[in-house]
Amino acid sequence: MRKPAILGGEPAFKEPLHVGRPNLPDKNVFWKYVDRIFDSRWLTNNGPLVREFQEKLEKFLHVKYCVPVCNGTIALELAERALNFKDEVILPSYTFVATAHSLQWQRITPVFADISKFDVTIDSESIKKVLTPNTTGIIGVHVYGHPCDYKKIGSIADTHNINVLYDAAHSFGCEVDNIPIANLGRASVFSFHATKFFNSFEGGAVTTNDESLAEQIRLMTNFGFNGFEKDTVDYLGINGKMTEVSAAMGLAMLHSIESIRENNKQNFEKYREAITDIEGISLIEPPQNLTKHNWQYVIVLVDREQFGIDRDTLIQALEAENVLARRYFYPGCHQMQPYRECFPDYSLILPNTDIISAKVISFPTGQTIGQEEIIGIAECLQSISHNRNHFHG
Amino acid sequence: MRKPAILGGEPAFKEPLHVGRPNLPDKNVFWKYVDRIFDSRWLTNNGPLVREFQEKLEKFLHVKYCVPVCNGTIALELAERALNFKDEVILPSYTFVATAHSLQWQRITPVFADISKFDVTIDSESIKKVLTPNTTGIIGVHVYGHPCDYKKIGSIADTHNINVLYDAAHSFGCEVDNIPIANLGRASVFSFHATKFFNSFEGGAVTTNDESLAEQIRLMTNFGFNGFEKDTVDYLGINGKMTEVSAAMGLAMLHSIESIRENNKQNFEKYREAITDIEGISLIEPPQNLTKHNWQYVIVLVDREQFGIDRDTLIQALEAENVLARRYFYPGCHQMQPYRECFPDYSLILPNTDIISAKVISFPTGQTIGQEEIIGIAECLQSISHNRNHFHG
Repeated sequence: MRKPAILGGEPAFKEPLHVGRPNLPDKNVFWKYVDRIFDSRWLTNNGPLVREFQEKLEKFLHVKYCVPVCNGTIALELAERALNFKDEVILPSYTFVATAHSLQWQRITPVFADISKFDVTIDSESIKKVLTPNTTGIIGVHVYGHPCDYKKIGSIADTHNINVLYDAAHSFGCEVDNIPIANLGRASVFSFHATKFFNSFEGGAVTTNDESLAEQIRLMTNFGFNGFEKDTVDYLGINGKMTEVSAAMGLAMLHSIESIRENNKQNFEKYREAITDIEGISLIEPPQNLTKHNWQYVIVLVDREQFGIDRDTLIQALEAENVLARRYFYPGCHQMQPYRECFPDYSLILPNTDIISAKVISFPTGQTIGQEEIIGIAECLQSISHNRNHFHG
Repeated sequence: MRKPAILGGEPAFKEPLHVGRPNLPDKNVFWKYVDRIFDSRWLTNNGPLVREFQEKLEKFLHVKYCVPVCNGTIALELAERALNFKDEVILPSYTFVATAHSLQWQRITPVFADISKFDVTIDSESIKKVLTPNTTGIIGVHVYGHPCDYKKIGSIADTHNINVLYDAAHSFGCEVDNIPIANLGRASVFSFHATKFFNSFEGGAVTTNDESLAEQIRLMTNFGFNGFEKDTVDYLGINGKMTEVSAAMGLAMLHSIESIRENNKQNFEKYREAITDIEGISLIEPPQNLTKHNWQYVIVLVDREQFGIDRDTLIQALEAENVLARRYFYPGCHQMQPYRECFPDYSLILPNTDIISAKVISFPTGQTIGQEEIIGIAECLQSISHNRNHFHG
C-alpha cells in the first residue's frame, strides 16, 4: 500500500482536485447567446435573454413564477423583504452563512434552530423551542439537496400564522415525494453560483406560485420601479438584476444539465462503492423521499474513534495528496461573527449542529471529476487509515 | 420647415434613438478575456480577471484601493455599512433612487437636502438645515459628473465629525480642480451599469485611499470571510462579488474608453451648436472646475414660458419623432415611495429639486449617436418650437 504524502510519500494527484470546481456549458452554445447580446446592445434590465431564461426556468423547475436575480444572497434578501420578515426569523445554524447574513444585513435577527442528525436539515422540534411572539418567518434550508421536513414545518407555520421561505440553493432540479422542490412554502430561493450544480457565473432566482408576490419581487429587483424604465417607484427595492450575459450562461448550462446530473450520480455511486469498507468514514445518503436528486454533494462524516484520526488532520493529509476536500459546513453560523459575539451560548441548544459540523467533509465531484479520480481519492483514504498510528490528530 | 410627427408629419427617425444605449467594446477583445475564463474554469470569487480589472481601475482612477462589486447599489450598501452609517444620513433628493434605497434597505433613514440651481449637486447650506444629532454621514452625488462642492461639504463633515461618501456613479474618468474624482471624501462609489459611460454589463466599485477600509469592504463583499475560501467570518457581509465575465467586459471597455469619451465630447459640442438658438431650451454646461469630463450626459432645461410648451409635452412630441429623451431625474426621490408617504411635506424644503426635475430632459448620446442624429434632433426641436401654437401643453 502507498505511503501517504503527508508522511513523505508522493502526492496522489499532480494537480489539485477542488470541491466545487465549476461545471461549464459548451462554449459555442454560450457564445451564440453572447452574439445576440452584442447584436441587440441589450446588456441588462430584464432583457430578452433574461426573459427567455426565466421562462425556461419556470418549465425546468415546474413552478409558476421565477424571478432571476444577480445572486442567491440578494434573492434571499428580496424574498425576505417581500414576505415582510422582520424582528426574528428562524433558520438552521447549519447552512452557508449567507442565509443568516441576508437577514442581519436588513437588521432582522436570525434565530438559529438545530438540525436533524439524520438528514441534517432543520429540526421541527427545535423550531418550536425557539419560536417567540416576535417570530415572523421560518427559513428552511434543503442542505445538500436533502428536503426539509416540509409537512411539519408547514404545520408549525400555519399554527403561528407565519410564512415559510425555502433556501433551495442546493436543490436545483430536485423533487421530494415527486413534488418539484420549488413548490414548497410561500417561495423558494435558488443560487446559480459558480460552485453550484447549475451556474450562471453568479446568479440566483426567487420562485413562487403566488402571482402578486412574484410581481412584487420582480419590481423590487429593479428598485421598485413600476415596470422597467418607468419613472414611478411603487416599492422600496434594490438592484438585484441579472445581466444578459449571466442569462446566456444559464441558458447554455440548461443544455448540459442532464449530462452533469448523470455524471454526478455515477460519481456518487463510485464513492459509495470505493469507500464503503473504510471504517469510520460514512457517506451521507440522500433521504428516501428525495425522488429526484442532483447528486451535487459527496458528504462524508468522519468518526474519530473508528477512523483513528480526527477530521481536520484528515483534511490536511488529503491536502498533501492534492485532494482539497472541504469542511462544508463548518463551523455553524452561530460560531461566526457577528453571531458568536451576540449569542455566545448558542451551542447549548444546537448540539447536532456542533456534532455534524465537527465531522463533515465534502469531497470533489462534478464535471472535472471521474471514476479514476474517485478511486485515487479512496486509495488516499485507505492509506491514511492504514497509517493511522503515525498521526497525532 | 418640417411638420412635427406628433402633428401628423413623418417621424424624423425610422429607428428609436435611446438615452443610455450601451457603449460596447470590441467583441474580439472581450472574447479573448472570456476564453481565459473557460480555460481556467474560474468564474467568480475574486478570480484573475477581477484582480487584473481592480489593478487597472486603481491606475485609471488614480486611487489607492478599488473593490469591484456586482453593481453600484450594492457598492453603496457596502460603503455605507463599512463607514458605520446608521440612524440618519443626508443625501440629495435629486439623484437616482438607488442612493436613497441603499440606505432605507438597511433601515437607515435617508434625509433629503436640496440642490444648487446651478450645478444641480447637493447644496451645502441645505445640508446644514437638515443636520441633526442623529446624522451619521453625508452622501454627495456628482450628478451628471458635476463635482459636489467638496470643500464646503468636507468642512461641514469635519465640524460634526461625520464621514462623507461620494456617489460617483456619473463620474467615471472625471477630475475636479485637477484632482481625480475618486480622491474625495472617505470613499467613492462608481456604477458600471450598462447605461453608464463605462460599463461591465452591471457592475460597480468602491474606491478609497484608506487601506483598512478597503480591506474591510473587500471582506464584506464575500460574506465577511477572512480571505476568499477560508472558513472564518470576521464581519457581517453579503454577496457583492463581481463575476469574471463582468471583469472581462470592464477590461475590454478600458481599451475603448478614450474613444468613447472623445465621441461624447464631440456630441456635446454638436448639441451646444445645434440648439443654441432655440429659445427656452438651455443646455446645462459642465462647471468650470470640472477639469476632466466624460461628457456622458446631455442635459437640457425646458423653460415653459419661453419655449411655449411644457417639458412633458415636449417629451411626447420627441417620442413621436422616435427620439426617446428621458426625464432624468424626475421626480425627486422625496416624491417616490416609500419616502413620499413617510415625509409628505418634503417639497417645502426642496424647492430647487422640484424646479429642476420639472424642467429637465436628458438627450441621446454615446457610441450609437453621431453628428447627423444630433442635427436631426435639433431640427425636431426647432419644428416643435415653430409649431408651438398647435400644442396644448
